[in-house]
Amino acid sequence: MSPHPVVEYTSEASWALVEDRFSPYAKETLAKVIKFCEDEVSPAVRVAQAQIPDEPALRWKSGIPITEELKAKAKKLGLWNLFLSKAHYPQFGMPLTNLEYAVMAEILGRFGQIASEALNCAAPDTGNMEVLARYGSPEQQKKWLLPLLNGEIRSAFSMTERYVASSDATNIRTSIRQEGSDIVINGHKWWISGAGDPRTKLHLVLGKSDPDNKSAYHQQSIVIVPVDTPGVKIVRPMKVFGYDDAPEGHCEVIYENVRVPLGNLVLGWGKGFEIIQGRLGPGRIHHCMRSIGAAQAALDAMVMRVTDATKKTFGKHLHEHGSILQEIARSRADIDSGRLLVLSAALKIDKHQAKGAMKEIAIAKFTIPKMACTVVDRAMQAFGAEGISQDQQLAQTYAQLRTLRFADGPDEVHMQQVGRNELKRAPMLLQRQQESKKKEQALFERVGLMAKL
Amino acid sequence: MSPHPVVEYTSEASWALVEDRFSPYAKETLAKVIKFCEDEVSPAVRVAQAQIPDEPALRWKSGIPITEELKAKAKKLGLWNLFLSKAHYPQFGMPLTNLEYAVMAEILGRFGQIASEALNCAAPDTGNMEVLARYGSPEQQKKWLLPLLNGEIRSAFSMTERYVASSDATNIRTSIRQEGSDIVINGHKWWISGAGDPRTKLHLVLGKSDPDNKSAYHQQSIVIVPVDTPGVKIVRPMKVFGYDDAPEGHCEVIYENVRVPLGNLVLGWGKGFEIIQGRLGPGRIHHCMRSIGAAQAALDAMVMRVTDATKKTFGKHLHEHGSILQEIARSRADIDSGRLLVLSAALKIDKHQAKGAMKEIAIAKFTIPKMACTVVDRAMQAFGAEGISQDQQLAQTYAQLRTLRFADGPDEVHMQQVGRNELKRAPMLLQRQQESKKKEQALFERVGLMAKL
Amino acid sequence: MSPHPVVEYTSEASWALVEDRFSPYAKETLAKVIKFCEDEVSPAVRVAQAQIPDEPALRWKSGIPITEELKAKAKKLGLWNLFLSKAHYPQFGMPLTNLEYAVMAEILGRFGQIASEALNCAAPDTGNMEVLARYGSPEQQKKWLLPLLNGEIRSAFSMTERYVASSDATNIRTSIRQEGSDIVINGHKWWISGAGDPRTKLHLVLGKSDPDNKSAYHQQSIVIVPVDTPGVKIVRPMKVFGYDDAPEGHCEVIYENVRVPLGNLVLGWGKGFEIIQGRLGPGRIHHCMRSIGAAQAALDAMVMRVTDATKKTFGKHLHEHGSILQEIARSRADIDSGRLLVLSAALKIDKHQAKGAMKEIAIAKFTIPKMACTVVDRAMQAFGAEGISQDQQLAQTYAQLRTLRFADGPDEVHMQQVGRNELKRAPMLLQRQQESKKKEQALFERVGLMAKL
Amino acid sequence: MSPHPVVEYTSEASWALVEDRFSPYAKETLAKVIKFCEDEVSPAVRVAQAQIPDEPALRWKSGIPITEELKAKAKKLGLWNLFLSKAHYPQFGMPLTNLEYAVMAEILGRFGQIASEALNCAAPDTGNMEVLARYGSPEQQKKWLLPLLNGEIRSAFSMTERYVASSDATNIRTSIRQEGSDIVINGHKWWISGAGDPRTKLHLVLGKSDPDNKSAYHQQSIVIVPVDTPGVKIVRPMKVFGYDDAPEGHCEVIYENVRVPLGNLVLGWGKGFEIIQGRLGPGRIHHCMRSIGAAQAALDAMVMRVTDATKKTFGKHLHEHGSILQEIARSRADIDSGRLLVLSAALKIDKHQAKGAMKEIAIAKFTIPKMACTVVDRAMQAFGAEGISQDQQLAQTYAQLRTLRFADGPDEVHMQQVGRNELKRAPMLLQRQQESKKKEQALFERVGLMAKL
Repeated sequence: MSPHPVVEYTSEASWALVEDRFSPYAKETLAKVIKFCEDEVSPAVRVAQAQIPDEPALRWKSGIPITEELKAKAKKLGLWNLFLSKAHYPQFGMPLTNLEYAVMAEILGRFGQIASEALNCAAPDTGNMEVLARYGSPEQQKKWLLPLLNGEIRSAFSMTERYVASSDATNIRTSIRQEGSDIVINGHKWWISGAGDPRTKLHLVLGKSDPDNKSAYHQQSIVIVPVDTPGVKIVRPMKVFGYDDAPEGHCEVIYENVRVPLGNLVLGWGKGFEIIQGRLGPGRIHHCMRSIGAAQAALDAMVMRVTDATKKTFGKHLHEHGSILQEIARSRADIDSGRLLVLSAALKIDKHQAKGAMKEIAIAKFTIPKMACTVVDRAMQAFGAEGISQDQQLAQTYAQLRTLRFADGPDEVHMQQVGRNELKRAPMLLQRQQESKKKEQALFERVGLMAKL
Repeated sequence: MSPHPVVEYTSEASWALVEDRFSPYAKETLAKVIKFCEDEVSPAVRVAQAQIPDEPALRWKSGIPITEELKAKAKKLGLWNLFLSKAHYPQFGMPLTNLEYAVMAEILGRFGQIASEALNCAAPDTGNMEVLARYGSPEQQKKWLLPLLNGEIRSAFSMTERYVASSDATNIRTSIRQEGSDIVINGHKWWISGAGDPRTKLHLVLGKSDPDNKSAYHQQSIVIVPVDTPGVKIVRPMKVFGYDDAPEGHCEVIYENVRVPLGNLVLGWGKGFEIIQGRLGPGRIHHCMRSIGAAQAALDAMVMRVTDATKKTFGKHLHEHGSILQEIARSRADIDSGRLLVLSAALKIDKHQAKGAMKEIAIAKFTIPKMACTVVDRAMQAFGAEGISQDQQLAQTYAQLRTLRFADGPDEVHMQQVGRNELKRAPMLLQRQQESKKKEQALFERVGLMAKL
Repeated sequence: MSPHPVVEYTSEASWALVEDRFSPYAKETLAKVIKFCEDEVSPAVRVAQAQIPDEPALRWKSGIPITEELKAKAKKLGLWNLFLSKAHYPQFGMPLTNLEYAVMAEILGRFGQIASEALNCAAPDTGNMEVLARYGSPEQQKKWLLPLLNGEIRSAFSMTERYVASSDATNIRTSIRQEGSDIVINGHKWWISGAGDPRTKLHLVLGKSDPDNKSAYHQQSIVIVPVDTPGVKIVRPMKVFGYDDAPEGHCEVIYENVRVPLGNLVLGWGKGFEIIQGRLGPGRIHHCMRSIGAAQAALDAMVMRVTDATKKTFGKHLHEHGSILQEIARSRADIDSGRLLVLSAALKIDKHQAKGAMKEIAIAKFTIPKMACTVVDRAMQAFGAEGISQDQQLAQTYAQLRTLRFADGPDEVHMQQVGRNELKRAPMLLQRQQESKKKEQALFERVGLMAKL
Repeated sequence: MSPHPVVEYTSEASWALVEDRFSPYAKETLAKVIKFCEDEVSPAVRVAQAQIPDEPALRWKSGIPITEELKAKAKKLGLWNLFLSKAHYPQFGMPLTNLEYAVMAEILGRFGQIASEALNCAAPDTGNMEVLARYGSPEQQKKWLLPLLNGEIRSAFSMTERYVASSDATNIRTSIRQEGSDIVINGHKWWISGAGDPRTKLHLVLGKSDPDNKSAYHQQSIVIVPVDTPGVKIVRPMKVFGYDDAPEGHCEVIYENVRVPLGNLVLGWGKGFEIIQGRLGPGRIHHCMRSIGAAQAALDAMVMRVTDATKKTFGKHLHEHGSILQEIARSRADIDSGRLLVLSAALKIDKHQAKGAMKEIAIAKFTIPKMACTVVDRAMQAFGAEGISQDQQLAQTYAQLRTLRFADGPDEVHMQQVGRNELKRAPMLLQRQQESKKKEQALFERVGLMAKL
């Protein structure tokens, strides 16, 4: 029996560790994802770039035609909404575990944003669909979730605020208050991914509805804001390095006396923090796996480059110089160990929900994007100046990966959390040590010796 | 059902990934190993140190009494020769896979050399038993393997040579030649682990028997040399940093006209290279897992230290200063990802033999000891000067781990090997790229655009 | 006496080490450079950005008005062509040493490209002026050097080639051949800095005029090509992490049967390699010092950010979290030691010409840009997403610094060169060791002991 | 004129930067130090090791004969007490600046502890002589300082305490109290360097004399304790990575009701903190320069090793493999930049006293030992197992360098101090930024544009 095609894209050893956790359906779907990406997505990547106009005024006017074509094909093939696990979302989900989808997300990651979007598996829609599927009212689901699940519209998640350090949610300043049967929203956000896209029809806006609540975790609420509501102002796209990521973009958005009906409140007053907590876990795993895919693609590019006979210098192939082979070996090791780390976190989510896998998710969160940046940077160095130019994907990939070291909280926050979590083991460790010392003492007495100084 | 005790010593997430690959016997044995190490080995560590005399002349005269006691207890409990997998050694082995034993090896590693020895799972005996079990003649097995399996004697593997770079086996200078029905050995070795131990009764000596053979891989043979053969001279123990590791030691040894019967040749003339290749795979995995155990123990010590209220400085616990929490978090991530890497290599050995897992073994080999050194170094820094003194195990652990970055070939050799292995993927990658480019071209034509410059 | 204002911008300790090597004129000029940058350049940085049109078609049509204003002011103040040392270029230079200008270049570097251009000290013009001043014929100097020295025109250095690894100059494919009294040039270059600028009037083009010459170092020649010569095609600007660096740009350029008079040959046939060697030394020092200035500016921005009370998270200033203070301290140390390294190289150029300072220049070359990237990356991390956006200079600075790790040869080439240079010390070291061993032997005999094993 | 011999031992570029700050006497003395180390010290290093008995009981009984010989020779040559600068200690010092001695200290460092001791420039005596020369009463100077200056006796500085984190001096528990005309000392110290040496005749003991003083900096006093005073108990030598550093050692010492006359109080009650502050600055510079010398010696050893034809592997010299040349180049750069950093700190001490150079000293303190550890570790890796054995100095050097990352406060403390110091620049930076913004605003208005979003 020939090995699963995933092996050629990832690693035999990691596949061996998870293969028998894959259902036949998942294995088959994974193979179809690979084939679809190879046959359809890969040739479309630069076509999609060509379809985005250069003129600033035109870049945000429409979606990318080839992407819409891909979506139609993928949907037909059943490669659709694979991120949404039936186990967690019985009504809407696909019969895939987080672990199974994680392996697919790596494949998507190596083909870039367009791959995820083609399969309706692109952030921020994925997280938003999770929120609506889990917490949305039937009306909200009908009006917003179904078209999202169908890939007819897109959405934004409006959390990060300008002028404050909003990775600490207690710093949020956006105001959400009830006025009669309306909700009125005022706030100043930025880095709102997807807000530039003409297909985006709703924002899920996080704000403070009860700023004086004693519990910092019950002050926030989330409201659905249709983008055509008066007072919603898309100020400008933020750039990442020099990229604007049109047509989605990461925009600065002002909500000025935006008024929506009470029915647009999600889950209930003061439930904002609870919702974002639930939303982030699997999403972080997806980001990590896509990052690993991007790193693997960079390593593959590097391998091709350093064996390219036209790039010899001083009579040698690039790979014969200095430390290139070592950099490749290190990249191989970094990617393989990173992948295993994230897959083990995904498995833990399947077993214990995101909440039970907080530690593993946090470890992945601060480990993987940095690792992937390092791998891509090595590839860029092997390519020379071409590596940072528009002729290769590397620099844009680097820029996107670099943002993941802040997105959903900077590395530092997650490291502190994991560090503190480790400290909780201290009492158990101390007790164990003391018990051992007691026995040691008895043993010293029995053999008639004292510990060496 | 309460979780397996291994979780408290390693990681819930990695256990989740391998748990259902463990047989009931393996799970139970693993639990017994943990309990034995906790109850018996841990209290004995410093007692064993106290039982080694300080006087240079006496340090090499006998084994350590408490270790012999532990061996007797372990044997009785069936915790014996667990490293030898029945799947590979049907006649002598235990019903454990490499993966199952790997997890146990991590536990042993955290309690130091004495733990491995107590279970008759200590290098270099383990590799030597594998050689004799696989390649030894019935007479050799009877005379040498059985007492080794019984823990009655110990053994050395005599490969590394003074004055030459013997990590390249073609550089070996020791001469092994037939004279009538004898074999005569002349050579100068060093770093022969266990050669200082009075319980060591045999050396497996690698030398050149056919230096002119065209194939560099058929020039070497291996011979069993009883230590009491005239001409075997233990010159001195080599020190590792300032440690002599008595009573085993890593000795300089001269073989001067050492004469043994022809029956002491292992497997056949010119089979030396084949034997060492087979010997090294699982042994490297064991080293790696023990290193991970040592790193985990260092992290645990660090956690206890930085929460120790008597060590406050400038009014704060150590863990409240600067980057301590980050160092702990990084160590947690490094250990967890390293463990998964080695476990996946162990699984690959189970599936495809050591030969089929060369890449994974090499990755583990250059990744894990360095990682473990880093983790232990962080712990030393948290302990301050005490961390490098005889009052903590950290410095000695560091010294031992540091040797693993050369033992069985330096990191650099393994990195080059992995790097070269990756380059073999280039033709496949290129072909895939070219196919995609063709489709891309067709797509550009269809949409009537050209690639962006 | 109050300290020199440079101290506040760089470091008291490094200034102490070089202060008494500064002439009174140099000290005064340095102070004027600082004041000019503070008063005039700093407020103009974002104005200049605003004066570059967004429309792709318009970005390359003209220079930046505010830059021209600054140039006029700087020229009036005598802050002009400071890079050109009278000691090396008696006819055209300023009475400044390389060391003195190096300190000024750091100041310029912290205010960005516009500062260097304002003082007519911007690459690639600086290197081109050096070439023409040293090697140009009187006619060439009159026609091209004088307007360059006056800041009336700009220039490009056309060396890097598409499709080959041209960091090895023997790979150059551009053909330069004589046809009667003409020179005909055919070649395909890219990354030609300044080639997009409408003010650029000449390219210095490196090509092969004698590809069969036995000496790889005499195959190349350099020719002055006026940009309006038929056959000069500016294909497109290359982007660096999404930035096009308009209006200068780094362009792809094709020379197709470009025909110039024989008088445009610089220095002579086969002198190309000699010219580029002489050109690169001081230029690398300037790049390094500007990089240090950029790193210092990033550190200053980071200091302001982490003390900004509006960015508190979880009740603390950013600088109270984790390792921020350590990152700042490391950056301080990295910048200070890097600066000293480059200043010592500059001093060596002053004493022994660039050729006598090859080692020091190479060390600076592979050390400083990487260090500066690291410092800027730490600052970006402290800023969060804002740090990689258009609202801060950090990402663009990072992108520019990143290119310096390939420009004029990748880090790896320079490391190999320095490494090989060190190996030349081996015979001297061995001899010294052997002499010591002889004396040691005598000493052992005298005291009646042997070396410890 | 031939270059100064120091160039061959350090770096031409750094020497160029400081050469003209050297007096003729200093240049000559430096040359004599080099010659003495080459001719006398280098051959004696392993002889000295051989003269230290192996038997634990004998290792601490006497000084090393060859060292005493070297001391006599050095004294005769005037190479004596060079560390003590006449500028700071007019009565006792030598006419050398800190900068001048710093360069000599690097030379001493490359030949190990014995070199410093031979010139009576070894810690902790150096710091103790500084204390007594600056703060000692005439009687104290006569009784203790003169024999120390003569090299007749040695001394210890007793500060670090067992069981508490004494790098924060407020944690000190040792009690020093007056009883009539006596001082009574009770305390438990460890890591007291030199306390094992039979030639050590006095301890300078830091303890708390006024634990309730509101100022944490006036609670401590320092007392001279002759080692033969009843109640002084040398408990054991602490080991560093297995090394006991006999005969000096780093000992655990208990002071139990130790009673000395009031005249043994140094400087006055409550002056302990002031004394240690003054003591540490130059001493740290010496440690750093010696560390750089040790790193340079390791690099030299590495260069010899990798060019050794007998160590070829796989048909290549070691330096032709992978990244060896890069490691050498990096080490060269690390050493050179580190040296410049410390020299600039030494110069600052000469100009502004240790107090005025706190920042530079702290930067050197956390940068240099870590750098030197890295360089030595690279050399160990190039040597393979021999590199960590008793046959090379590398492992012992590593162990000593590793202690410097805790000694006088761990790296972390110094980084925090430097980090905080940088933050003090924030108000100045902010003001500068605001002024620039104001001018920018005016400029935008003048040109009729707005800042780009």
